[in-house]
Amino acid sequence: MNWSDIDTNAKKWTREAGERIRSSFSQELMIHTKTSPDDLVTNIDRDTEQFLIEKIRETYPDHQILGEEGLGDKLDKLDGTVWIIDPIDGTMNFVHQQRNFAISVAVYEDGIGKIGLIYDVVHDELYHAKPGEGAFLNDIRLPQLEEVEVEKAVIALNATWVTENKRIDPTILAPLIKRVRGTRSYGSAALEMAYVATGRIDAYITLRLSPWDFAAGLIMVQELGGKVTTLLGEPLNLLEQNSVFVSKPGLHEEISKDYLSKLK
Amino acid sequence: MNWSDIDTNAKKWTREAGERIRSSFSQELMIHTKTSPDDLVTNIDRDTEQFLIEKIRETYPDHQILGEEGLGDKLDKLDGTVWIIDPIDGTMNFVHQQRNFAISVAVYEDGIGKIGLIYDVVHDELYHAKPGEGAFLNDIRLPQLEEVEVEKAVIALNATWVTENKRIDPTILAPLIKRVRGTRSYGSAALEMAYVATGRIDAYITLRLSPWDFAAGLIMVQELGGKVTTLLGEPLNLLEQNSVFVSKPGLHEEISKDYLSKLK
Repeated sequence: MNWSDIDTNAKKWTREAGERIRSSFSQELMIHTKTSPDDLVTNIDRDTEQFLIEKIRETYPDHQILGEEGLGDKLDKLDGTVWIIDPIDGTMNFVHQQRNFAISVAVYEDGIGKIGLIYDVVHDELYHAKPGEGAFLNDIRLPQLEEVEVEKAVIALNATWVTENKRIDPTILAPLIKRVRGTRSYGSAALEMAYVATGRIDAYITLRLSPWDFAAGLIMVQELGGKVTTLLGEPLNLLEQNSVFVSKPGLHEEISKDYLSKLK
Repeated sequence: MNWSDIDTNAKKWTREAGERIRSSFSQELMIHTKTSPDDLVTNIDRDTEQFLIEKIRETYPDHQILGEEGLGDKLDKLDGTVWIIDPIDGTMNFVHQQRNFAISVAVYEDGIGKIGLIYDVVHDELYHAKPGEGAFLNDIRLPQLEEVEVEKAVIALNATWVTENKRIDPTILAPLIKRVRGTRSYGSAALEMAYVATGRIDAYITLRLSPWDFAAGLIMVQELGGKVTTLLGEPLNLLEQNSVFVSKPGLHEEISKDYLSKLK
């Protein structure tokens, strides 16, 4: 398996897919006048996934593909080489903002992460990780993540999870909000994981993500020494939905002990 | 008073101040290795305010200046021409992210907004409003804001305000979180007001801002038909701290009636 070629192609196709999305904005602010933004996003979501699948099938006919739009394969195991694709992560941002969304592309071999790409299309920022070789933002190497205390941390956490909701007792994370330096919420799991990778935020906590939302970010954050688990501290399952807790080292253990342990 | 000249100068000096901040990032990702990021931000905050004050004093010696860093004038009324300046709005983002902060510059005459500028330094996006002439993003005219229902709204609201805090009963806004389409939190009041102006978010609610945080955004959102009040629906006071509720029309009335009326 020539991973260098796969890596080069994955980056090339992801950038090309982004260019297609950018050119679909005939003018940045016009999209608001569309009568049915939901149709538009579905088309671009599907078109982008289809574009990537065609490229992969053409060059690597024996690879499997797991994609958000379901145009790839139905998989019940991760044997062989599997591409895990989210053509537009952060669909609500895409519709409402025409920014703050990303293309997420990951390649796994027998369940082991080999390539992770997150492309912030509007800002033309490609985050890229290759285990053992490092992680990069537009070819600038990202430093390893350092430990940080809860009191100095800025974490991404949507207000949903500290108010009444179906997935978590809101009193579990509410005290964490008071203790951290600040909280943010961006609405794209892939970008929020890229922000942990670059140190812009220190942790990201969410209650339900699909494999294509986190497959690339998982590879990236782990390559930089960060931790990615479920809220219970278990490894993520790449074939089903998971709660997701992404964090700098040290901080992961501290938040797990002081807050998330109450989930058990 | 030549408002066209003042406008041209305000834009020129704001962009120059942004260029100075950008060039202070010798390399985007290096700032994390500084031993004392708080010192750095203080210096750049103060340097930027000082730079703007010198430009204003030189050209308009009879104008007053109200700035976050306190290098301008002490004002107890808004008579005459007053510049209201925040050299770096979103200081925590500046330190942690080196993005998602803005320079906010407003010019008022006898308490009436004449010019509002918000400059997203890293993305080189200048939001600009001049009452009666419109609002613009990098010279692209922004459309008037249209009404939106609560159920279709994306609002900026920090998780702090729906958990235990000193300023608002968290049960007042918690039910709003469930009803809206989504919530976000960006950590820069000026940018969050610019995002309402561009329709990227539909409303922004926060409990304590200083005049320099909202002076430019107030002019911009009102010029586009949006509403800017305290959480009690009162006009903002430009000489003291205020709670702030910025919203598209229609949505402002609905959220006031269904949620914020409980504050009274």
